[in-house]
Amino acid sequence: MKNLDKLQQWLIDTNNDVAYISDPLSINYFTGYSMEPHERIFALVAFKDAPAFIFAPELNVEEAKASAWDGDVYGYLDHENPWQKIANLVKNKINTVANIAIEKNHLSVDRSEQLKIAFPNSIFASDVSPFIAKARLVKTEDEIKQLKAAGEEADFAFTVGFDALRNGVTERYVAGQIDYQLKLQKGVMHTSFETIVQAGMNAANPHLGPTMNKIEPNELVLFDLGTMHNGYASDSSRTVAYGEPSAKEKEIYEVDREAQQAAIDAARPGITAAELDAVARDIITKAGYGEYFIHRLGHGIGLNVHEEPQIMEGNDIVLQEGMCFSIEPGIYIPGLGGVRIEDCGVVTDHGFETFTHTSKDLKYIPVKD
Amino acid sequence: MKNLDKLQQWLIDTNNDVAYISDPLSINYFTGYSMEPHERIFALVAFKDAPAFIFAPELNVEEAKASAWDGDVYGYLDHENPWQKIANLVKNKINTVANIAIEKNHLSVDRSEQLKIAFPNSIFASDVSPFIAKARLVKTEDEIKQLKAAGEEADFAFTVGFDALRNGVTERYVAGQIDYQLKLQKGVMHTSFETIVQAGMNAANPHLGPTMNKIEPNELVLFDLGTMHNGYASDSSRTVAYGEPSAKEKEIYEVDREAQQAAIDAARPGITAAELDAVARDIITKAGYGEYFIHRLGHGIGLNVHEEPQIMEGNDIVLQEGMCFSIEPGIYIPGLGGVRIEDCGVVTDHGFETFTHTSKDLKYIPVKD
Repeated sequence: MKNLDKLQQWLIDTNNDVAYISDPLSINYFTGYSMEPHERIFALVAFKDAPAFIFAPELNVEEAKASAWDGDVYGYLDHENPWQKIANLVKNKINTVANIAIEKNHLSVDRSEQLKIAFPNSIFASDVSPFIAKARLVKTEDEIKQLKAAGEEADFAFTVGFDALRNGVTERYVAGQIDYQLKLQKGVMHTSFETIVQAGMNAANPHLGPTMNKIEPNELVLFDLGTMHNGYASDSSRTVAYGEPSAKEKEIYEVDREAQQAAIDAARPGITAAELDAVARDIITKAGYGEYFIHRLGHGIGLNVHEEPQIMEGNDIVLQEGMCFSIEPGIYIPGLGGVRIEDCGVVTDHGFETFTHTSKDLKYIPVKD
Repeated sequence: MKNLDKLQQWLIDTNNDVAYISDPLSINYFTGYSMEPHERIFALVAFKDAPAFIFAPELNVEEAKASAWDGDVYGYLDHENPWQKIANLVKNKINTVANIAIEKNHLSVDRSEQLKIAFPNSIFASDVSPFIAKARLVKTEDEIKQLKAAGEEADFAFTVGFDALRNGVTERYVAGQIDYQLKLQKGVMHTSFETIVQAGMNAANPHLGPTMNKIEPNELVLFDLGTMHNGYASDSSRTVAYGEPSAKEKEIYEVDREAQQAAIDAARPGITAAELDAVARDIITKAGYGEYFIHRLGHGIGLNVHEEPQIMEGNDIVLQEGMCFSIEPGIYIPGLGGVRIEDCGVVTDHGFETFTHTSKDLKYIPVKD
């Protein structure tokens, strides 16, 4: 069944007349068209009993019409009231608008109030976001193909980053080389998040963007990067040795690597997300570094770089074939440095296949000027 | 008065005990610290009667503590319930939590419901977003300094883009050169939006990202780009001639240029946003192209690349000294091409000073292989 047909079936099952879909990623999932609307209004309006339409700023109407989406597209000008325009369009399509479902995990309170003003007699009790998250949870063969292609781009990006390390260049310079070569050699226009390059102590702050700090000999350098390939994300981390790091750094590297490999080996249909998190966490805790592993083991990946399922304590979802997520234990020691090793992959009928293949033996990069 | 003090005064004036600030740009405005939390929870919690604190994923706590923010920072782990943790923190700070203001233009319906569960006896009637938008409307001298520095980076980016034009390279290649040289030569890590390069007919779709289409001789090429400088955005457009465009293209260029200059000349304290929009729109309409100018004349700029004030029909806000916004009329003719000329600037005591200075005489770039 096509994704949009599933949404229509959900509307029938839940007795909602309309779904107002506002997340550009959801719109992409259902229509094959998306864009970044900034502060303007962009929506897919779907019906129990009528064909769905896209509503977009007039600026984007031509582009939407020329896209993979073959349904109607309606626009509005900046000075027009988009909510009244949507209400009029809906009333032209269907007679009764009793129940309207919204994406509660995306729509702002302000916009939900505007919708309520435009549809004063409708009920907005239903949240369509859990249905969408669940629909996106198990990937199709084509989606997995896109995720693998994105993973290949991430592997390429590592080779660029490793080659760019030398004395005195900044983390930001190395990140810039990665982004540039991705564009130039692979046609990658969008990374899935800001490319992270962290040397030495900076790697103890897991989400710190690349700084103007200079690469120095004999430290670990952490890379975390990803690309967007036909709308699908990659996300992978490697930590390498530039010169000869300390014994302590090498030790935490090997602990983290063991934890990551154990979790990859344990991932298969039937294990829960919480159990998988525990596989890696137990190894790190037993080695004495539990307090320094300050995030979940992983996150789902697909159209969004972070989506369901969350691989973490307390999440008892049973993993099944076709679910795609990251396995990324990390150890971050303030004042010393950090290690993270991450692959995304897909649960297969008997295990877990990663989308990235860059070696995880600790790589020693010779110091150079 | 410091920005955070203004927020506290607003809480006193509106009799709200707490403000839950969720937009990372607002958090930056009040604290000097910000980051991209993706799906995790990041908030500034401010009080009528107690010092504000930052609440962030544990991943970011060290970074926040090391930032310009000198108040408290509290973290949560992925498997913890952030809402309950926030409620406990708030109850430790103040005795009565009768009224909580939220940012309705940012907070999702889902998260507002989570907050209501965590604070079952509180009233969430107040929207703090209009206050924040208004506070950010008139820029300080330091903010204008940052915006000018961002504008200089945009001017540099144009020189890179113009130099990169040659037969057979793709729009995407040219955009890539711009982003790369910004990083390499200017240390710009973030553009304020995806760099747009549109050649020939592609320029008729105002927001279409750069494609793999190749640059051909004798067409107009539209650039729209911007950078982030210390958290402040630039945004500027230029349209240039690669070789010798058609007479029609040259005509729409001159109409657009006249409209843009007239609006710059008219911008000063006392004119309304709607009146300023009309200055440019009337010129384009009289020339016969009114139907092809399908967006507002401009938008405010600051921490966000698009913010208040909107320079458009129906917006009767009176412009005053210190307000910063774009002036960017465009003419987009499907099947022919498009022109947009854009500068951001600040209203001065007697006029309007632009942040970008790249010439607006139609620039002819010689065709080269």
